[in-house]
Amino acid sequence: MRTICAFDIYGTLFDMRTVLPVLAAGVQDPEEFYRLWRFKLIHYLAITSAIGTFVDLPVLREKAFDFCVKELGTGASERVKRDFLEASLYLKPFNDVRPGLERLRKAGTKVIALSTGLKDDLLAMFARAKLQDCFDAVITNKEAGIYKPHPRAYLYAAERLGVAPSEMRMVAAHPWDLIGARNAGLSPAWLRRAELAGLESRTYDTIDEMPELVADSLTELVEKIIATDLR
Amino acid sequence: MRTICAFDIYGTLFDMRTVLPVLAAGVQDPEEFYRLWRFKLIHYLAITSAIGTFVDLPVLREKAFDFCVKELGTGASERVKRDFLEASLYLKPFNDVRPGLERLRKAGTKVIALSTGLKDDLLAMFARAKLQDCFDAVITNKEAGIYKPHPRAYLYAAERLGVAPSEMRMVAAHPWDLIGARNAGLSPAWLRRAELAGLESRTYDTIDEMPELVADSLTELVEKIIATDLR
Repeated sequence: MRTICAFDIYGTLFDMRTVLPVLAAGVQDPEEFYRLWRFKLIHYLAITSAIGTFVDLPVLREKAFDFCVKELGTGASERVKRDFLEASLYLKPFNDVRPGLERLRKAGTKVIALSTGLKDDLLAMFARAKLQDCFDAVITNKEAGIYKPHPRAYLYAAERLGVAPSEMRMVAAHPWDLIGARNAGLSPAWLRRAELAGLESRTYDTIDEMPELVADSLTELVEKIIATDLR
Repeated sequence: MRTICAFDIYGTLFDMRTVLPVLAAGVQDPEEFYRLWRFKLIHYLAITSAIGTFVDLPVLREKAFDFCVKELGTGASERVKRDFLEASLYLKPFNDVRPGLERLRKAGTKVIALSTGLKDDLLAMFARAKLQDCFDAVITNKEAGIYKPHPRAYLYAAERLGVAPSEMRMVAAHPWDLIGARNAGLSPAWLRRAELAGLESRTYDTIDEMPELVADSLTELVEKIIATDLR
């Protein structure tokens, strides 16, 4: 029995591509810019996790943006940067989120947000998407003082919820997050968001085994979680 | 006074692009493949560093190769894979390596290899490049049980050499390595290899301050190190 299911938020329940139209209005090659920005942000999370420091996510987002401007030699006005950072705070949810989370909770599972984001930012994004009633708790890496995939980021959540890590399921679109979760003792489930092309989700990271539970939509994945965790 | 100078090897003293002709013979878009391969390898190093596990570098190289084949849907024969992994063991040194390291040692500095590679692989590569006499010691992340940028990877080296981290200089082409070094108490120097375009070196990572010492060739950087560390 696993009655707690933790969800990654950015890219898993909310669509990172919400920022693309803003980039399209302000940089030469928005796809290239976005791709490099995601690489950099994900690498910055891993570096800070490895060296044991913590920097707030909005700061990392901005630093990654600044890197791309320099590296690509692209002109991006302060206006575009401000709009981009604003858009990255208020992503659009994927369509399967509400039905998926509601089904899971009705079956008897607690739904937790376990995110790299700041709590106020997450709550504001949930409110704007009218999904604030979908979560039993919102736990951030800032509270743990370290980013995923460091084990402490997951163990902190388990401790706060008063359960063993093995009683928790982690759902993410990013393999590196699931590798960290499995390493900390949680059970991983991979939500394969085809929309997140590139490094992130089409191919599972080859340094770990494929999770037992995999699906291409949350509604499909939730049925597998219920069948496995609540039986 | 800093009389110990540690060098990153792959990409800093030896040219990663040695593998490009092999890729050109075996995959559709060799530049794209190489770029993704480098990013994946660097990310795998950071992930294992963050979760505290260790996997030998040749295995990570192969796993990153496998990822690229799947992700890019490119056909790569077993032959090409074998040739690629062989080529990644025996990179060509940059032209400025011998004069740079010799100058440094004549000035009174010990030259240390501090590498993610396996010791036997490094020694074989140094021998093939006729550079085996250039190093006072070869220290690997495997001995420390953790990859850079984790602090233990650097502190292990300082301990083995019997010096304080502050007595060590770290030279690398990759900002993430220098961020880790600085975090562990070493003094960073950035060798800006213009050949390593893309994610790695043209632009310094925006989550850290630019190192005090920066140059575009080893010969130039070595003069700055001597002027700063031995004065």
